[in-house]
Amino acid sequence: MNRDTIAAISTGMSASGIGIVRISGEQAFEVIDRIFHGKEKLSGAKSHTIHYGFIMDGEDTADEVLVSVMRSPRTFTGENTVEINCHGGMFVVKKVLEIVLENGARLAEPGEFTKRAFLNGRMDLSQAEAVMDVIHSQNSYALKSSVGQLRGNVKRKIGGIREKILYHTAFIESALDDPEHISIDGYGEELEQVLDELTAKLEKLIRSYDSGRIIKEGIQTVILGKPNVGKSSLLNILSGRERAIVTDIAGTTRDILEEQVQIQGLNLNVIDTAGIRDTHDMIEKMGVEKAKEYADQADLIIYVADASRELDENDMRIGELIYGKKCIILLNKSDLITVVSKTDLKNCLKEIFSKVGGRLPEEESAEGLVERIPLIDISVKMEQGIREFGLVLQEMFLEGDISSNEEIHITNLRQKEALAAAYDALQRVRQSIRDQMPEDFYSIDLMDAYEALGSITGETIGEDLVNEIFSKFCMGK
Amino acid sequence: MNRDTIAAISTGMSASGIGIVRISGEQAFEVIDRIFHGKEKLSGAKSHTIHYGFIMDGEDTADEVLVSVMRSPRTFTGENTVEINCHGGMFVVKKVLEIVLENGARLAEPGEFTKRAFLNGRMDLSQAEAVMDVIHSQNSYALKSSVGQLRGNVKRKIGGIREKILYHTAFIESALDDPEHISIDGYGEELEQVLDELTAKLEKLIRSYDSGRIIKEGIQTVILGKPNVGKSSLLNILSGRERAIVTDIAGTTRDILEEQVQIQGLNLNVIDTAGIRDTHDMIEKMGVEKAKEYADQADLIIYVADASRELDENDMRIGELIYGKKCIILLNKSDLITVVSKTDLKNCLKEIFSKVGGRLPEEESAEGLVERIPLIDISVKMEQGIREFGLVLQEMFLEGDISSNEEIHITNLRQKEALAAAYDALQRVRQSIRDQMPEDFYSIDLMDAYEALGSITGETIGEDLVNEIFSKFCMGK
Repeated sequence: MNRDTIAAISTGMSASGIGIVRISGEQAFEVIDRIFHGKEKLSGAKSHTIHYGFIMDGEDTADEVLVSVMRSPRTFTGENTVEINCHGGMFVVKKVLEIVLENGARLAEPGEFTKRAFLNGRMDLSQAEAVMDVIHSQNSYALKSSVGQLRGNVKRKIGGIREKILYHTAFIESALDDPEHISIDGYGEELEQVLDELTAKLEKLIRSYDSGRIIKEGIQTVILGKPNVGKSSLLNILSGRERAIVTDIAGTTRDILEEQVQIQGLNLNVIDTAGIRDTHDMIEKMGVEKAKEYADQADLIIYVADASRELDENDMRIGELIYGKKCIILLNKSDLITVVSKTDLKNCLKEIFSKVGGRLPEEESAEGLVERIPLIDISVKMEQGIREFGLVLQEMFLEGDISSNEEIHITNLRQKEALAAAYDALQRVRQSIRDQMPEDFYSIDLMDAYEALGSITGETIGEDLVNEIFSKFCMGK
Repeated sequence: MNRDTIAAISTGMSASGIGIVRISGEQAFEVIDRIFHGKEKLSGAKSHTIHYGFIMDGEDTADEVLVSVMRSPRTFTGENTVEINCHGGMFVVKKVLEIVLENGARLAEPGEFTKRAFLNGRMDLSQAEAVMDVIHSQNSYALKSSVGQLRGNVKRKIGGIREKILYHTAFIESALDDPEHISIDGYGEELEQVLDELTAKLEKLIRSYDSGRIIKEGIQTVILGKPNVGKSSLLNILSGRERAIVTDIAGTTRDILEEQVQIQGLNLNVIDTAGIRDTHDMIEKMGVEKAKEYADQADLIIYVADASRELDENDMRIGELIYGKKCIILLNKSDLITVVSKTDLKNCLKEIFSKVGGRLPEEESAEGLVERIPLIDISVKMEQGIREFGLVLQEMFLEGDISSNEEIHITNLRQKEALAAAYDALQRVRQSIRDQMPEDFYSIDLMDAYEALGSITGETIGEDLVNEIFSKFCMGK
């Protein structure tokens, strides 16, 4: 462990009360001794103590600071670590960093502190990746999930599965080496039971990726509805501010607006669209085409219908768009005199769905499909029905107990792919057993699964991939 | 000292490695004990120590953190202080703050930590104001000046002057109370000598405000020059990036661009303008009018002349604009075949200045004025002459030794006004002496000066003004 000493600004780059310059490496105390004036030399200070003093730029005082001293190995990186807590102005923090760099440290690469924590064995790769997930969490579920991973729940889960795989591989290898003393007669059956258990665990983890992705990245959402039905106003209420220009002129919203809104702890990445309708206005038409395209890619369509106006051709066209998609219908303007009831709307949709029913799966009826679409009375104007909408969303998108740190939700595509590779390898073992292949076939695929899972914890991963993973981190972490 | 316990996010509000939630007040340790899970209870921890653990949100882990514990009175605020060093994501930092606020702290007002530091006698008002100056420093001189003030140079200077004033006031009062034992015959002369010394000091401080303002806020600068002379390219070189769209089409720069650039440690707030020229294009004309307006208000005009093209009407008009203003002339395109020499340009300007010479002060000649304008050959294209330009700027705008922390530069208008009030009061004392007024007149004005200076250190300042000053601070400081 003879790495050079690195430093970076670890706090946000905007004027604030406190800014932190972090130094890590064998020479961290030598560097701070050269530039810190206080009561004592910090190289002599106890670990995990805080010291008041000044950072000097030659004869001049650059800033009044508090310096934290933490000694290897009980630090984030595992190395000697110094954190200079200075004033949080852009210029002054950069100045302090500059002085640190002039006195023996080099500028850290993005993610280099966490990379060292990983390389020095302070955390496994799943925990290291969780560091950035915690920082980028945008809602409480995402935070819980990534803090759980940071505390090691993925590490432990994967570790347990790998241990079992290794045990059985070793057993097979021993038996093959020493057939006189170790018998593997009937071992295939025993192994199949183990495979059942392990593939079930892997399957659950892989499945958790859907919730995990939704939790982490938000639900890709398209709002559809005819002009003036209140789509932009709904978006404004959800986002809590005036993002779209809301007017009474039909077709005002010409550009595709993207907005991230939170409801019941979930993030919706909402794409508001031009009202779906017949139009000769080219620009608006482009918006309509785009809307259809987005609807096809979305996780969720919110169809805002108008209870105060008769259903028309626009609603028919939207009906066709939502067929076969995850959808929530909001029947808006429930505060006005309503001319469209829930039943009217359902009947209309049933008619549309049965027309496009060629695509219906055998066991599905148009009636059944329509009945399963949540349909909520709301009044955007009176802000009624919004909470119910949130609860329906939760039920629709969140599986399992996501309110706890303990439950694992895989949110990382790399990890999901490794899980899938391990799953496939174990299925190959199962197939070899069924095909009564020789036992050394088992152990090859078992080791493949073992390796694939090891890439999640970082035990079986190359330097290039490690570098690539950490290069996506932010500076100072 | 029985203030409630406050908390706020003290780091910048952008995703980063580290975020800090600061808690200050009598209950700070009780608050952290309720939400921190680690090896030990932090209420029992030694001062100035760091502790690893987790912030809990009920049963759930909100984040993995390091917590700094600092005990009253040896802290920034003078109160018990806890700093939670958590992951620097927006959501997670806000979550940790929320948990702190749910467990006995209230959200701090902007500047409330520093206000408490002041009210608890940890710093005087000049030091408290320096805290924000340090944070908002945008160049090394501004930083040096404000760190000097933070370390107490203004406090000590003002304290020394006040002490002298108080001594003499007390002497006069004693003499008036006890004329039998204390004689003030001839005291007026002695006092006048003291006044000479004190007013000289005050004058120097007041004068330092000009440099101080320039250091702190930058030089309001207008770049003038005919179209295609290289104004935008100059701005780009100074700012080090492509801010203005630079093209070969005359009159491209239509909007007023503002750019903050640094040169030799000084900040220029540069307003680039549409080329000054005759034009029928209305939008461009608006730009030209604006340019004239800005030129009138600027601290500095940079006139970029073109050595490769004959002087024309545009140059004449610019010549009129720079008359009587602080100006630097850059003769650009010195890399091309030059048709305009320095002498040509000077002669042209002398002619213009003598025409508008009705405004000339008696002792000034047009020749003298022109000769005193710095005129530098540059090549924006070859990046030549830029350093010389910087040196000329320094000489023009900086008085005294601004390279040291020790030299005081008043940068605060409130402080300057208090100094001016004290100066006026001392001048009134001088006048009373000369007018042979009774001695109690002296002491009234001496006390006025004493009070005025006390408003700088905060000793003689009302609660309202204190609140107003700190309300301009940023959150978390």
